[in-house]
This record gives sequence, C-alpha cells and structure tokens, in this order.
Amino acid sequence: MILILKNLATDDQIDHVLRRVEEMGLQHHLSRGTHRTIVGIIGDEDQLREEPLRAIPGVAQVVPVLPPYKLASRDAHPESSIVDVSGVKIGGGHLGMIAGPCSVEDPDRMFRIAEKVVASGANLFRGGAYKPRTSPYAFQGMGEDGLKLLREVGNRYNIPVVTEVTDPRLVELVSGYADMLQVGARNMQNFALLTEVGKSKRPVLLKRGMSATITDLLMCAEYILSQGNMNVVLCERGIKSFDPATRNLFDVAAVPLVQQLSHLPIIVDPSHATGRPDLIPACAMAGLAAGADGVHIEVHDCPEVAKSDGPQALLPEQYDQLAGQMKSLAALLGKQFS
Amino acid sequence: MILILKNLATDDQIDHVLRRVEEMGLQHHLSRGTHRTIVGIIGDEDQLREEPLRAIPGVAQVVPVLPPYKLASRDAHPESSIVDVSGVKIGGGHLGMIAGPCSVEDPDRMFRIAEKVVASGANLFRGGAYKPRTSPYAFQGMGEDGLKLLREVGNRYNIPVVTEVTDPRLVELVSGYADMLQVGARNMQNFALLTEVGKSKRPVLLKRGMSATITDLLMCAEYILSQGNMNVVLCERGIKSFDPATRNLFDVAAVPLVQQLSHLPIIVDPSHATGRPDLIPACAMAGLAAGADGVHIEVHDCPEVAKSDGPQALLPEQYDQLAGQMKSLAALLGKQFS
Amino acid sequence: MILILKNLATDDQIDHVLRRVEEMGLQHHLSRGTHRTIVGIIGDEDQLREEPLRAIPGVAQVVPVLPPYKLASRDAHPESSIVDVSGVKIGGGHLGMIAGPCSVEDPDRMFRIAEKVVASGANLFRGGAYKPRTSPYAFQGMGEDGLKLLREVGNRYNIPVVTEVTDPRLVELVSGYADMLQVGARNMQNFALLTEVGKSKRPVLLKRGMSATITDLLMCAEYILSQGNMNVVLCERGIKSFDPATRNLFDVAAVPLVQQLSHLPIIVDPSHATGRPDLIPACAMAGLAAGADGVHIEVHDCPEVAKSDGPQALLPEQYDQLAGQMKSLAALLGKQFS
Amino acid sequence: MILILKNLATDDQIDHVLRRVEEMGLQHHLSRGTHRTIVGIIGDEDQLREEPLRAIPGVAQVVPVLPPYKLASRDAHPESSIVDVSGVKIGGGHLGMIAGPCSVEDPDRMFRIAEKVVASGANLFRGGAYKPRTSPYAFQGMGEDGLKLLREVGNRYNIPVVTEVTDPRLVELVSGYADMLQVGARNMQNFALLTEVGKSKRPVLLKRGMSATITDLLMCAEYILSQGNMNVVLCERGIKSFDPATRNLFDVAAVPLVQQLSHLPIIVDPSHATGRPDLIPACAMAGLAAGADGVHIEVHDCPEVAKSDGPQALLPEQYDQLAGQMKSLAALLGKQFS
Repeated sequence: MILILKNLATDDQIDHVLRRVEEMGLQHHLSRGTHRTIVGIIGDEDQLREEPLRAIPGVAQVVPVLPPYKLASRDAHPESSIVDVSGVKIGGGHLGMIAGPCSVEDPDRMFRIAEKVVASGANLFRGGAYKPRTSPYAFQGMGEDGLKLLREVGNRYNIPVVTEVTDPRLVELVSGYADMLQVGARNMQNFALLTEVGKSKRPVLLKRGMSATITDLLMCAEYILSQGNMNVVLCERGIKSFDPATRNLFDVAAVPLVQQLSHLPIIVDPSHATGRPDLIPACAMAGLAAGADGVHIEVHDCPEVAKSDGPQALLPEQYDQLAGQMKSLAALLGKQFS
Repeated sequence: MILILKNLATDDQIDHVLRRVEEMGLQHHLSRGTHRTIVGIIGDEDQLREEPLRAIPGVAQVVPVLPPYKLASRDAHPESSIVDVSGVKIGGGHLGMIAGPCSVEDPDRMFRIAEKVVASGANLFRGGAYKPRTSPYAFQGMGEDGLKLLREVGNRYNIPVVTEVTDPRLVELVSGYADMLQVGARNMQNFALLTEVGKSKRPVLLKRGMSATITDLLMCAEYILSQGNMNVVLCERGIKSFDPATRNLFDVAAVPLVQQLSHLPIIVDPSHATGRPDLIPACAMAGLAAGADGVHIEVHDCPEVAKSDGPQALLPEQYDQLAGQMKSLAALLGKQFS
Repeated sequence: MILILKNLATDDQIDHVLRRVEEMGLQHHLSRGTHRTIVGIIGDEDQLREEPLRAIPGVAQVVPVLPPYKLASRDAHPESSIVDVSGVKIGGGHLGMIAGPCSVEDPDRMFRIAEKVVASGANLFRGGAYKPRTSPYAFQGMGEDGLKLLREVGNRYNIPVVTEVTDPRLVELVSGYADMLQVGARNMQNFALLTEVGKSKRPVLLKRGMSATITDLLMCAEYILSQGNMNVVLCERGIKSFDPATRNLFDVAAVPLVQQLSHLPIIVDPSHATGRPDLIPACAMAGLAAGADGVHIEVHDCPEVAKSDGPQALLPEQYDQLAGQMKSLAALLGKQFS
Repeated sequence: MILILKNLATDDQIDHVLRRVEEMGLQHHLSRGTHRTIVGIIGDEDQLREEPLRAIPGVAQVVPVLPPYKLASRDAHPESSIVDVSGVKIGGGHLGMIAGPCSVEDPDRMFRIAEKVVASGANLFRGGAYKPRTSPYAFQGMGEDGLKLLREVGNRYNIPVVTEVTDPRLVELVSGYADMLQVGARNMQNFALLTEVGKSKRPVLLKRGMSATITDLLMCAEYILSQGNMNVVLCERGIKSFDPATRNLFDVAAVPLVQQLSHLPIIVDPSHATGRPDLIPACAMAGLAAGADGVHIEVHDCPEVAKSDGPQALLPEQYDQLAGQMKSLAALLGKQFS
C-alpha cells in the first residue's frame, strides 16, 4: 500500500501517519519528493485494506499495490480452472454452450426447444423458474413446478441444466433440481445469496452486474470461493452505457482481462448484452474470438408469445446457423465445442 | 402503447400485428405514413407491457405511453406523501435529517456521536449492524448485538433509528429493533428483499442503485408499495460515472425529477454520493436547494479508526457547522428542520 | 413523428398542437386513448426535426420515426460501400489493415516499422504529424516535416498513408501529403473540420467520439457526405465507461449495429479502445469476428521511447503474430486480407 | 511519480527501470515489498509525464503524484480568481448571471428578451451566431449578422454579451463583437480553437465536454492559460449518463471539486444539463447552493418557434421568478447578485 500525503501535510501529520502504521505492526518507507511526501507500507495488504487509511489527517491518496481478491486471482492459481457441470467441462479449451428460453414455460415447448438446441450442439440447457422482474406485476416464473420441468428436460435430453436462484432461502431447493446455479446481474452483490451458493456444492454461473467493474466481479466470485465452492464460471452480459441503441453494452474486452487476472472461466451472454437478436450472432462470434470459454444464448421457438424477454431470443433455426459458425471458429481456435 | 413498424414491413406482417392486438382484446389504430406504418394500441397498458410486442415480426420499436409504476406515481396520488417514522415526519415540507456512523461500533462511541448529532439537529440516527461489504474478508457488522445497541441509543436520546437490512431472512429481526429499514443501493433490485420489507410495517428508506434509472428506482418502490407498505422514502446516493475523482456521481436533478413523477419523499446522501468529506457540505446544501426532503450524512468522531467508510465521514463539529447552514437554507425555503 | 401529449393536456392545447402542425403544411392523425392523447404527424420528417415540437404547450414527448441521417443510411443505399484509398479497398469483404506508430518520429524508425508491418500484411500505414494532446506541454507532433516523412514512407513501401488532421486550416496542406485523412475522436463533433474534410477529395477515417452514440457518429458522417465526399470509413475506438481497468470501453456491438443502419465501412481500433497491449490481440480478433471491415493498430519498435502513446503500442513481432491469426480468421469469414 | 512493478519483474527489468530513470537525469527510490517492488521517482513530474513509463518492461502501473495542470491549479494560485467581463465580475463572491436565447434570432425578439432578463437581474446576455448543430441540415446560426445584432443588444441594454466561437478562423471576427467567447462542450478538446482563444484578449467561457473528467476540463483551461489568456470561467453543463430521463446529467459536485483544485471561477448551466425547463429552477438553486460563481440559463419568449433548443428554454416570466429565488439564496450565501 502506498500513501501519498497532501501538499501541505505538516511534520506532525507525517509523524502521526508513521505512528499509525507502526501501531498496525507494519513497516513504513518514507520518501520526501520536491512536492509530495510518500509513505510505502510493507506488510499484509489484506490487513491494511481494512484500515481507513485515507481518513488519517494529511493523507491525500491511498494506492493499493495488490488486487483485493486472492482465491480468484491468477497469482494464486496460475493454471486456468476447468469447471465440471455434471460431466460438461467449461474452461481450459472446453466451451460451455448454454442455450434455452428465458423462462421455463409449458412442457411441450420446453421439450421442443431442448431437442433443437441439443441437436445444434448446446451442452447446457437454461430456463428460469424464479425470475427477477423489474415489475412486481410481471410474470415471476413457475417456481418449483418450473424446476421440476427443467429437471425432466435435463433427464430426457441428457443435458445438464442451469437456472437462476434469487433468494438465499431457495438455494437448497434449487440445488435439488439444477446442475448449475445462476446468480443474476441484479444479485451480483447480494452477499447473503453469494454466501449461500458458496456453501452449496453446485457449480455457479455468476453474471456481472450492469455497473460492476472487473474488480467488483472478481470480489463477488471471491465471496463464493471463500465459502469453499471453487466451481465458479463468470459471465459478461453487458453493462450500462449512454447509448440507448442496445439494451446494454457488450464489454468483450472483459474476457481477456478476466483471463489475465483470474483463473476462473468466463463466458459471454450476447442475448442480454445487446437485447437484440440481430446483433447476437456477431457478438457471440466476437466473444469466442476474444477467447471466451463459452456462450450463453436465449432461444425460443415463438418469441412473440414468450413469457419473458421474447424480443431478445433467437429462433432455434437461427441458433443452429450460429452454432455452425461457432463450431468453425472454435476449430480454428483449437477449442472443444460441446 | 405505440408500435412503430419496420421500413419494409409487409402487408401480411401488418395484418399479423393487428390480429395479435385483437387477440389481446384491445383496439388498434393504424396510421400509414410516407416511410413508416404506426399502430396505436388503446387499452390497458399494464397488460400490454407484459407482452413481448417487439418480438412480433415487422415491429421495429415499441413506445410506451404511460409509466410502468402506478402506486408510486404522482398521477395516482397527486399530493406529496408524508412518511412518519416513529413521530418524525419526512416529506411535504418536513425534513428528515439522518446522521450517524456507517457501522454500529462500541457503545461509548455510539452514545458520544448520537449526543452530538442530536444537539446539531439530526432527527434520525443511523448505524449499520449488517454491512454489505465488497470484500468477504471485511468487517461484516456487529449483527444483532449492533441492533440492540442501536435501539439503546435511540431510546436514550429519544431519536428514531434507521439501519440496513440485507437479507430477506432478517427483516423480521431487524424490524424488532429499528424504526426504519434501509434497503441499500446494492440491494435495490433484490426483489426477494423488497417483497419482505413490503410486508413489514416499518417505514423503508430505499436507496437508488448505482446504475438505476429513475424509472428503475420507482419500480423498486412499487414492489414495496404493492405489498401494502406505503411508507417509502427514496434516497439519491450517487450513481456510477467515468470520473474517478469522486466515488460516485451525485445526481441532484433526481430530486425534482422524482418529485414530479412520484408522491414519495426523496432525500439525498452526499456521503456516499461523493465519498469525500470535503465535498459533502456543498452537496448537502445543493440537495436541499433542489428541494430534497432530507439529508443523510455519515458522522464519526474518529474517522481514521472507523470500522467502515471512515474516509467519507464528517466529524461531529463539521456536521454541526453544516447543520447550521442547512437550518438557514431550510428557513429560506420554508421547510421544517427537525 | 409522433407527439405524445401530457396527461392533463386541455382541449385548447390539443387544438393548438394541431394548428401548429397545419401551419407547417403537414397532416396530423389524432388518437385519444384512455390516459393519453397521441398525434401522429405525416410528412417530411427532416422538416419536422427542425421544429421545437417538444416546446409546444401540452406536449410531453416527441418520438421520431425515421433516423436523422439520410446519405449515411442503409435505407438510402442498401449496398455496402467500398472505399478506395489509393488502390486499397475497405468494405464489402475487403479489410483495411492500418498499422504504424502513434506519432511520426525519426526517419530510420519510420522506415523500420513500415517495412515490418508491410511484411506482416498491413495495407495502410499510419502516423500522426499533428497530435491532439491533452496537455499543452506535451509533444504536439512534427507538423509538415512529419507529413513529408510519412509521404516518403508511403512512396518507398508503396503503401497508402493515413494521418490525422485537427484544424480546418490544415486540411488542404495535409491532403497534399496523405492518402486518407483521419478525424480523431476528440474532433468527431468539430463541425468546421468535418465540413472542410467533406470538401476535400481524400477518403476520411472518422473515429467515434468517446461519448458519441451510434446516431451521433452517423450524423457526423452525414456532415462529410453532405459536402460531397462519399469516401468515409468509420472507426470504433472505445467509449467512456466507469471501469478504470481499461483506457476506454471497446464497443464491439457497434460493428454489426453500424452495418445494419449504414452502408459505410466500419473498422475497429483496439489500441485506443483498450490502451493495453495485452488486450489488443483478443479485441482485434473480436472485431474481425463481429464483421469489422478492418483493424487499426499502433505499432512501435521501442514503445518505451515513443513520443506518444508508447504504452499501448504492439511490437512489430507481436503485430506479425496477430496478423497471422487475423489472416486465418479472415479466410474463415471469406474476407480479403490485404 | 511512482512506478509499481509487475509481480514477476526480474532483477534485470528492475535494473533497466532504474537506468531509464537515471538517463532522464532523475533520482529513484527503490522499495521492495513482500509481493511487489515499487520505484519512487523524484524530480520534475512534468518532464516525467512526457515519458512512456508504462511501456518499460516490468512496469505494471504508473501513479502520478501531482496534477498535470499548473497554471489552472490552486496550488499555483491559492486565491480565487475574479474574471472581469467588460466590468462584470465573476468569481470571488461575484455571480455571473448569464441569460438569453440559444440562437440569435430576429432583432425585435432579441430586444424584448434582453429587456426582460436585464430587468430580472441578468448581468451577461448570451446568444449563438455560429451554432454547432448535430445535423448538417439544421439551422447553423445567423453568422456575422447575428454578431452585429448581439453587439447592438449589448450596447442598447448596457450588458456585456457572450457568444460561442466554433472555428479557430473565426476567433478574431467574433472577438470584434463579443465581450466574452464561449467554447462549447463539443469543442472542449478542440486544441486548435483553445490555442486561438488563448491568444485572444477576450475572457473565455469554457464548457465542460460531455465525457470530460474534471482533470480533462482543467487541462483544457491550461491550454488557454498557457497562451497568456488568464480570464477563463469554467462551466458545468451536464455529462453523459445512462438515464434517458434528462438530456445530460448535472454534476453539481463538480463545483466544489473545481474550486478545491483550481482558482478559476465555475458557473453552472442547468439548461443544457437537464434539457428540461421543469428541472432548471431546482438545478439552478442547487448550483448556487453548491457554491457556483454564476448561472447560465437559456430564455426565450416563445420556445415553440425558437430556432434551436426551444424545448429547454425558460420563459422570461419563469426566469424572473427564478431570479428572485436566486437573489434570496445569494444573499444568504453572502454573494453579489448582479
């Protein structure tokens, strides 16, 4: 940790800063420049991060030297992690190809969609039973009935299923049906929920919040990892920006950036990132080319009657065409496609 | 609701759109311009909002005509609401002046701070017992012991207390001690939590998420109101922006905007909005001048040892000076200060 | 154009709105819903856009139906444009591969870098002679001497050269040396400059401003096109966002979005978009996979002594490796690489 | 300047870094921590800023210690500057109250508006003769005829006039008519224009770009100051954000922040910041309460026929009412109102 002192910091203030550092049992390293005095602190940065150093009189700026996450960091775990979801691998060259409707809906439709996306090469099936909707009057999902149906789809087509959990009280119930638990963007910093999924044995798909920095995202992964659950897959799904042309802004550079900072796999979700079917294929390809460990895409066979997010779903035949292109690209990149 | 059709929408597509509208039991109103065809839909917009209209082939854009919130809307309730927190009124000319440390800490400190902010004119005391921290390794709050201590402070100084609740499982417990429940920015869209506080009888302080639009904020208020709890106070506490000079960006225009769209009171929190004590007084005054129904400020008597957010706390004497200025401004604006 | 009237718009206000529309010589189309009245206006939307319709009493919202650009729009020109830069084609399957140092520097270095990037497959050479620097004390470029040197490089290696012009007074001078004129992000809305490059015969590389929407970008292209210069290539180079991890945020979805709305070619600039050499290759690949018509990359053979933007340059050998990967990807996508 | 080296920086890399610093004629200060090595550089930070330090192999991060602006900095000039615009003072307790229409239009209207805003207390009259419009087809201003008319208004009502200059070639012409030159938000980083207005003798109103940080803004002021023109007034006029409810986001905290970092006066422009007349009064009051040195407001007596930006103008009677409130607030704050 480096402390940059204020222009006008007095000798008394400088002494006080040094004493505070010593009280924490740490060493300091004073450097007086022409215009500013700088104090380097040597010792456990995790301990230091907890101290309100910027509140010490005379301190202008606190510059951390290490990232605030440890278990999620590549420093701590140089090799890329591979997360196994009931036999399907994600990371380390293995692509997790997640497809399915936004919400779990009626059985026939679910079976139809699942059959098609499996044929196209998807290796994980998605569907929401508990939906975090911005309106209290909107369809909130089928609940446990939806979970049961999702499980049935998984069994019939022999494909692991992933579904969102939105409430810490439901983690155990959802874990009973799903192969992978999704924590959605709006709940990325719901620390009670992160702690519960961290205690679960299920792999977790952690979506980036719409205004989360990469550091924020990795700190939320750290919450899960710190509870003992090391099977976390991150997901870039678009962040807030000023252009209303797309629902969110697809931050494709998050892929190589996360892969540099962390050993955890990261996939992309162009459905939520753009909210526009016409932009999904280009963004899915971009994500793979940037090195993503998988692609999450919403597919519905009749978007105009979908219970949620219909306007951003691909039709099964559109997904099939895109899957073909993704297969070719994966081959070029030397990655396993399903 | 207005549907703007695509440039090249065929007659078949137009017919299909009209049929879909009729299937919903609603009337349509077709208008063919030189370049675009437009379909007005007359009827219950709440019902319509649920339909994935933009997914209907040929539809380019869907323009809502009404806001998606009802109970929170000023249309539905033209008079400004006054929320009563154990005798302290917020809204309609009454200012809610919330002050106190970020976290509940040791008793002596709490009593000292409370005594001082009460003397300065604060009428609500704050302190966090359950802290949503970005690091799993950071101080997470004193829990129920903190709640008990906060209650004791409230009783001793005869001031209602407000504290954050972060987990739907804790709403009942926290309601047993606190006069007002705070839902923090990171949990603004934690719909399970909103539903629980909506079922509680306690007034709620709902903080705006750091990337929430005003519509998002009012929809979250709607979640609480729709459960029967009408005592919601909103809080502007800064949103994400591109300039790292301040922790967040204080959106002071949110105050008159919310007051135009909604009957609910709105206060400002310059502590979190700026993260810098040197900017807090100016922003507090700005908030009041913009018409805010109160001001939330963190106060600590030794910020450099605070358990959380020390670097953004005012000292009691700084708070006292600011409170004096706010009193003068409130008098000029014809508002009740404490 | 659609006017949505206010909730409480009076009959007099509605009449006044209709009269204003008639005064403009246009037809209206009134639709009274349960809660809102809507006025469709039929006629020349370009004329309407000039009118301050939202200022008419009783009007709540003005919804445009057509995009505000015409010459840049794909509606007006369904086929993708191919821009020819002294024999090098960009667009319609032809990739413009721009490489070179940020600033023109000493001759030996320029020749060395040019020789290498040409060998790797670059087909346009870049270098700034007039640099828009955020500090008045920073190196401002070599000026006309830099232009002369750039021309010499172009002639010796038989590669067209592109350089930035920052001042309307310099357009003629720069056009005398360069094959393509670049308008930088900070000058995207420098309308005096756009008008001058629009009068020039040289192709223009127009970079997206760091807070420009896609509509803003296309309107700036419209400025150039409306002066008679149809040879405009757009460039996505990153926009402002809240995460300081990268210099800017690479908006890869801008590529398919621009290609849908406009016939103009669009390339990507991962150097400025990320500001980090370690992220450039992944983002360059992502841009191509998303359908970009070319890639702009800064290359320097000794970044640590570069006169500007050294920290974001690739080394020639890094560029060569990336160029090999881009060639394979271009082949997969069926595009011409240099 | 502080260099934080990479985790895995080798001894050779560390030696190379130290040698590079010595080559620049500067001293270094090495500090090896448990996880990271840090190099403090002592000496002229302006010189250092020019060096691509982050491009030196092994360097992870470069932390500047001083702000990059000097003449604009309060360190260099502790007392608040007062800018004199033909007898009207701005700064140091004197408020610059700028009012007038967006564009200069017909003479009668100009005289009518001027008479009214002067009566309300405005002390500077504004009107654009050269308009930076986002559409090449929109009204571009009356040009020199507009300047003449503006001068006539100024003379008749004995009020200094301010108008925008958009082109370096026009600075001399505009200076012949106007008392103060405005550089608009879109041209904030038009360095050729900044250099020309820096050479002019006229005071300059420099508006913050819509995605400019405060550092960016002060660096642009530095361009003007470095040319010898010390009469610069800054203006916060809203920045880009994600909520489409307002045209821009009014960053009121910029006022105290600029006043802390710089001696230059700063005023606020709630007209452009919000784009909504219904929010202008609250934001004007907020700006003053935050300590602004003035308020810029667009006023038009018939917004629905204004040549530009009609929908955001106040009527003269609305301005008069607001001016009354601003007068009371100024008195409370101990400031001179006109």
